[in-house]
Amino acid sequence: MTSAAYDVVAIGNAIVDILSQSTDDFITAEGMTKGSMQLIFDPAEADALYSRMGPGQEVSGGSAANTIAGLAALGQPCAFIGQTADDQLGQVFAHDIQSLGVHFATPPATGGEPTGRCLILITPDGQRTMNTFLGAAQNLPESALDQRTLEAGRILYLEGYLWNAEHSRAAMKRAIAIARAAGRKVALTLSDTFVVEAHRDAFFALIDAGELDLLFANDNEVRAMMQTDDIGAAVKALAARVPVLVCTHGADGAEAHAGDEHARVPAEPVAKVVDTTGAGDLFAAGFLAGQAQGRDLETSLRMGAICAAECISHIGPRPQADIKALVEARLRG
Amino acid sequence: MTSAAYDVVAIGNAIVDILSQSTDDFITAEGMTKGSMQLIFDPAEADALYSRMGPGQEVSGGSAANTIAGLAALGQPCAFIGQTADDQLGQVFAHDIQSLGVHFATPPATGGEPTGRCLILITPDGQRTMNTFLGAAQNLPESALDQRTLEAGRILYLEGYLWNAEHSRAAMKRAIAIARAAGRKVALTLSDTFVVEAHRDAFFALIDAGELDLLFANDNEVRAMMQTDDIGAAVKALAARVPVLVCTHGADGAEAHAGDEHARVPAEPVAKVVDTTGAGDLFAAGFLAGQAQGRDLETSLRMGAICAAECISHIGPRPQADIKALVEARLRG
Repeated sequence: MTSAAYDVVAIGNAIVDILSQSTDDFITAEGMTKGSMQLIFDPAEADALYSRMGPGQEVSGGSAANTIAGLAALGQPCAFIGQTADDQLGQVFAHDIQSLGVHFATPPATGGEPTGRCLILITPDGQRTMNTFLGAAQNLPESALDQRTLEAGRILYLEGYLWNAEHSRAAMKRAIAIARAAGRKVALTLSDTFVVEAHRDAFFALIDAGELDLLFANDNEVRAMMQTDDIGAAVKALAARVPVLVCTHGADGAEAHAGDEHARVPAEPVAKVVDTTGAGDLFAAGFLAGQAQGRDLETSLRMGAICAAECISHIGPRPQADIKALVEARLRG
Repeated sequence: MTSAAYDVVAIGNAIVDILSQSTDDFITAEGMTKGSMQLIFDPAEADALYSRMGPGQEVSGGSAANTIAGLAALGQPCAFIGQTADDQLGQVFAHDIQSLGVHFATPPATGGEPTGRCLILITPDGQRTMNTFLGAAQNLPESALDQRTLEAGRILYLEGYLWNAEHSRAAMKRAIAIARAAGRKVALTLSDTFVVEAHRDAFFALIDAGELDLLFANDNEVRAMMQTDDIGAAVKALAARVPVLVCTHGADGAEAHAGDEHARVPAEPVAKVVDTTGAGDLFAAGFLAGQAQGRDLETSLRMGAICAAECISHIGPRPQADIKALVEARLRG
């Protein structure tokens, strides 16, 4: 195993978020499940929903891409692989991640679907409800998997959302094979309960084959994996099957299990929850940065909680404050 | 004169802002004048500056368009005319203004320059430094001036920035002629000192021909118009030449002169100045809403100050709070 140029190499959907303030009534009238993510396959349907939404703001998103943006802001060298199209939103996505110093060299697709976008409705409680039109993102070809980049990452980080599309699912499997052949670790975030419900068997097959080293999930995703409402029992059972399990509990903090080791931290206090978009992604960024810096489980969890708290205190899924300075200040006192 | 369907019809540059946090050192190194607006004519130069900037967020902008967005949020019926291109940023611009209920029907241009954008650097003091690539916006043709829309607005509101491009300047003159023939009032915002320096004679020609009813300016623009550093003398002299003059003084509040009438208000308190982008535009929105609602000069100024304060308390030039409710609450006490 050669030395690693990157702490984390991630593969994810390259998405631009369109964030708009909404009401609970609108969510209900649209038949959406508040707090969840649903896919929109028909471009006309995405356009129609957009036309019913209020004014928006556009910010680069994508779950794993947000995590990488957080890691880069924390000072960790990273790379990202994901499919944009050759259009203005694709340029926005590439600019935003490259300007953080992240290695991002996936060529934009030409002539096909536009860059993916996520129509996000923020309700007054700060909760986000996501409607994702994957566009070009779902067509990530195996050929986009630059082998040298994958081999150069200490950890390969994958988002569960990628399992939803045939192309990106195949690309994931290939990426895991490349990373493992290079002696690298593989991390997966389960992304959403509907992802777990659709791909539970595939995820357990990966776990049982020993191909996953770290698993990130929130409590609902852990419940869905273990098919029980008893979160304590579910975490315990899942933790017994993966080397490291990180489970976030929203306002109730987070815990991690690594073999016999266990740590739990409360959530960081936040003056006002403005928008929860990206909270889990930034939690993962803080935790992975802690691990890359050789910190213990509890400190890594605290770093995750600090980054998540910064994230939910503003609109949009990526850091706006200097989270490196913030983490250092909070850990000191 | 028939009844007016719109309180205000505005013509302005249709622009999407790309806002990015910056440092004073970066502004200096780039040779920019902090707080000002400069035009970028070369697309390659705009791309190069963008690539040197940090991660951004995209929000619809454009000075007069921001004013119209504010007026619509305050409940006043409005229309906007401005040139986008048939691209993703053009779709964002159209969505954001139409979703506020604003009549916006200028057909996007095809095959030419892309939708205009403004690269905005926000320094830690909340000041914004703007670099505008006008793109399609500067090609607003006279044919885009829908006569019925122009005739249907109680006030025609124009931004000084439009005087910078030949096409849009010609369109402005035509729009003024249409509005005046229909017995409508004409308002102009001076936009920036460099606009005043370039078009001072043209603006005085309009004033002296009696074609301007309302003039909006900040103190530097008033100084540039009257070519004196004595702001008190400059305001007095300019006020004597236009029916209504509104002059904003930043943190020192604002004043208005209408014939013998004069009113002055302090700035509204703000917890933290996050980003001054759009402050003047939203001041104009509040003032014009007050006038449309039949309020007196002082109340109209206060409404402007309340809207400007909301604007500078967040990133981006358009309201994020419910400014209608905010204005009502603040005016009550």
